[in-house]
Amino acid sequence: MIVSIIGGTRGLGYWIARFLKKEGLRVIITGRDHDAGMEAASRIGVEYCGDNVQAASRADVVVVSVPIDVTADVIREVAPQVRKGGLLMDVTSVKEEPARVMEESIGDGAHHLPAHPMFGPRVSSLEGQVVVLTPTQENPWVDTVIEFLEKHKARVIVTDPATHDRMMSVVQVLTHFAYISIASTLEAEGVDIRESRKFASPIYNLMIDTIARIVAQNPYLAYSIQIHNPHGQDMRDSFLRTASELNEMLSDGRMDEFVSRMGLAAKNIDDVEASLGRSDKAIEALNEELKILKDSVGGEVGLRHIYSGKVHVGVLESVTPDYATLREGKRLLRFKISNIRVLSDDELQMWKAENLPTRVYDISAVFPDTVAPHVIEYLTGLLDGVAGSEVVDVYSGPQIPDGHVSLTLRIRVFKREDYERVREILEGMGARIR
Amino acid sequence: MIVSIIGGTRGLGYWIARFLKKEGLRVIITGRDHDAGMEAASRIGVEYCGDNVQAASRADVVVVSVPIDVTADVIREVAPQVRKGGLLMDVTSVKEEPARVMEESIGDGAHHLPAHPMFGPRVSSLEGQVVVLTPTQENPWVDTVIEFLEKHKARVIVTDPATHDRMMSVVQVLTHFAYISIASTLEAEGVDIRESRKFASPIYNLMIDTIARIVAQNPYLAYSIQIHNPHGQDMRDSFLRTASELNEMLSDGRMDEFVSRMGLAAKNIDDVEASLGRSDKAIEALNEELKILKDSVGGEVGLRHIYSGKVHVGVLESVTPDYATLREGKRLLRFKISNIRVLSDDELQMWKAENLPTRVYDISAVFPDTVAPHVIEYLTGLLDGVAGSEVVDVYSGPQIPDGHVSLTLRIRVFKREDYERVREILEGMGARIR
Repeated sequence: MIVSIIGGTRGLGYWIARFLKKEGLRVIITGRDHDAGMEAASRIGVEYCGDNVQAASRADVVVVSVPIDVTADVIREVAPQVRKGGLLMDVTSVKEEPARVMEESIGDGAHHLPAHPMFGPRVSSLEGQVVVLTPTQENPWVDTVIEFLEKHKARVIVTDPATHDRMMSVVQVLTHFAYISIASTLEAEGVDIRESRKFASPIYNLMIDTIARIVAQNPYLAYSIQIHNPHGQDMRDSFLRTASELNEMLSDGRMDEFVSRMGLAAKNIDDVEASLGRSDKAIEALNEELKILKDSVGGEVGLRHIYSGKVHVGVLESVTPDYATLREGKRLLRFKISNIRVLSDDELQMWKAENLPTRVYDISAVFPDTVAPHVIEYLTGLLDGVAGSEVVDVYSGPQIPDGHVSLTLRIRVFKREDYERVREILEGMGARIR
Repeated sequence: MIVSIIGGTRGLGYWIARFLKKEGLRVIITGRDHDAGMEAASRIGVEYCGDNVQAASRADVVVVSVPIDVTADVIREVAPQVRKGGLLMDVTSVKEEPARVMEESIGDGAHHLPAHPMFGPRVSSLEGQVVVLTPTQENPWVDTVIEFLEKHKARVIVTDPATHDRMMSVVQVLTHFAYISIASTLEAEGVDIRESRKFASPIYNLMIDTIARIVAQNPYLAYSIQIHNPHGQDMRDSFLRTASELNEMLSDGRMDEFVSRMGLAAKNIDDVEASLGRSDKAIEALNEELKILKDSVGGEVGLRHIYSGKVHVGVLESVTPDYATLREGKRLLRFKISNIRVLSDDELQMWKAENLPTRVYDISAVFPDTVAPHVIEYLTGLLDGVAGSEVVDVYSGPQIPDGHVSLTLRIRVFKREDYERVREILEGMGARIR
């Protein structure tokens, strides 16, 4: 099966191309910039094609992943080329217009399925990500796409284009607009955000962090989402009207009115108690991590970079509210705490067992012949620093006293001291090392 | 030392009264409602006094904890009563006016220290909480208060009242106003929040959760913070102006201007990368917990209620995105996942050791006489289900063969099966149970 990604040289299109390639599909990407397209294609081992029409006509599935403002035109360009039995999709943040244009321009016997993956190219997998599908015709591809997405643990929502756009006018338009307005006010007022964080509660920090997330987006995408959603203008106007009314209530000292409006707003939230619980836990998780780090200074820790996934293990030298300094071998590494996650003891042990070089030692020890080799394996395997433990030989012969047996235990450990410790433990059980 | 809390029968004043009482101080609380005051006082074992003036004159430290709009009047009422060498504090969200009124009305030789604890009565301790102090006179109490707060691990910020109020016009006025406006727009537009969450990314859920936090506050306090901050009106006007400008750019299709404003706003955020990292981690922490729960169905888990602190241990029967059902003994308990935290394996073991009834068993076992009793204690102590392990007797005598010794191990376990497992492990080491 061949999938052509129209606009697959960067952003979400590029992400999809890489993802499908890893899944073993044949992928063609297109893009206006020939050099960038060739480079992107060779980076992920797919084919670059400079011509949308040609790419579309060669594929079984065509995915349009171009900026919102050119999506309709690109659909009109490629839809007639989709082969009989083939599928045309798009991944735009609005769904009414693309769905309508698809219906108007799709080729005979070809199918279409407008889609909106609710994530950006920052995510590392589909797991837990929401993908909205808005089919406007029954077609055999719908189930195939759903199965594919669910196999990768995405959360699939099937709805109609109008409901989607209405929901997005809340989920994206209103929230983005309000957050960009807050951030822009902070800038206009010359507020020193770093200074303001000192004064503030953890919830303020979390608020600023979510605001930062929104304004750190691609501003052209943010602009497009605002202007292309058919309900966007209404939603923004409604927001401004509401905020002005609240502001007037405050200026005029109309307390009862303000209190009643706020009460209605609170009542409209689906489950305030759950919201408090979740945000408390989110804050607690961040604080707890800092606490664990502070308690671990001088000891061994494992830190996983949250984006690259790379793990660093070493002795924690120092911790400030923003940075952790780790001695890894002879190198001193400094990490932004916001970018790392501290491994739990179990995770650290597992990582070490899988990644650190281990040494193998054989230890032969004489036990009473009632010994159970699997118990010795199990007990030594519980010890810190032991990555593996196996009885490789059970021997009784002339050198072994009557009523006794010699076990040869093969252990994998990280350091010579770990081996010595295992010897001591075996001796402590009453065994005699040979 | 006697501390009088003016307005100590509920809210933050009540929280402070309870906290200081636990610290061993003598506390008097006042409040307008006699019955409620008597009840609150008896609940936490302090004295209720119906008369602010009398309560102030009897105390070494007087803390005014009343609604903002009456704070100035109450300070005027009690300040002249503060004894020579005594201290007057307030805990209001604005600082310029209370500081000025304190200076004007404080008694001869008495001291004052305006304060703003940046937390509500929901918190369980001072640890990590921010307390802003805005002293306007040098006085011996300042260091005492700072030491007390830092002893309890609060983060103390010392600044002047004007800087405080300016910061709060951002940290509280702007953010609260914007969030209440969003929530009120959602209500006005009849948005079904629960439905919208289905469509949304985890970050939208976190945004809604923080919005819920703000609108779930006491609306009278929210109103007071808006109208009493001297910069509040300016800040709200600035926000509305900025939002209107952005809206016009969008209506007029002035893309470049919008993009440039958004870029400036992003640049003004202190550290966008750290913000992304922290919010990613906050979201991940919530998802991970749900994943741990799903993986634990059928097994034993410990759940701690995040507010009451109460721990429930049992077999996890089922998990939905919102609820976890636990079988605790014969009872089936249903928990909101947002209100519970899953204990780690270590935490669970520790909790069980401290809280579950244990049984004590003595096991005597014959080992080679080279056995090290502390190694046997250590190894058996590592086993799941063993809360304690101690060698209470070492015996060699007529019944014990030469070259051998009998250890009596006293173990504390939760279940008889755990005891049987320890016996098997000892036998597996080659020991002979007597």
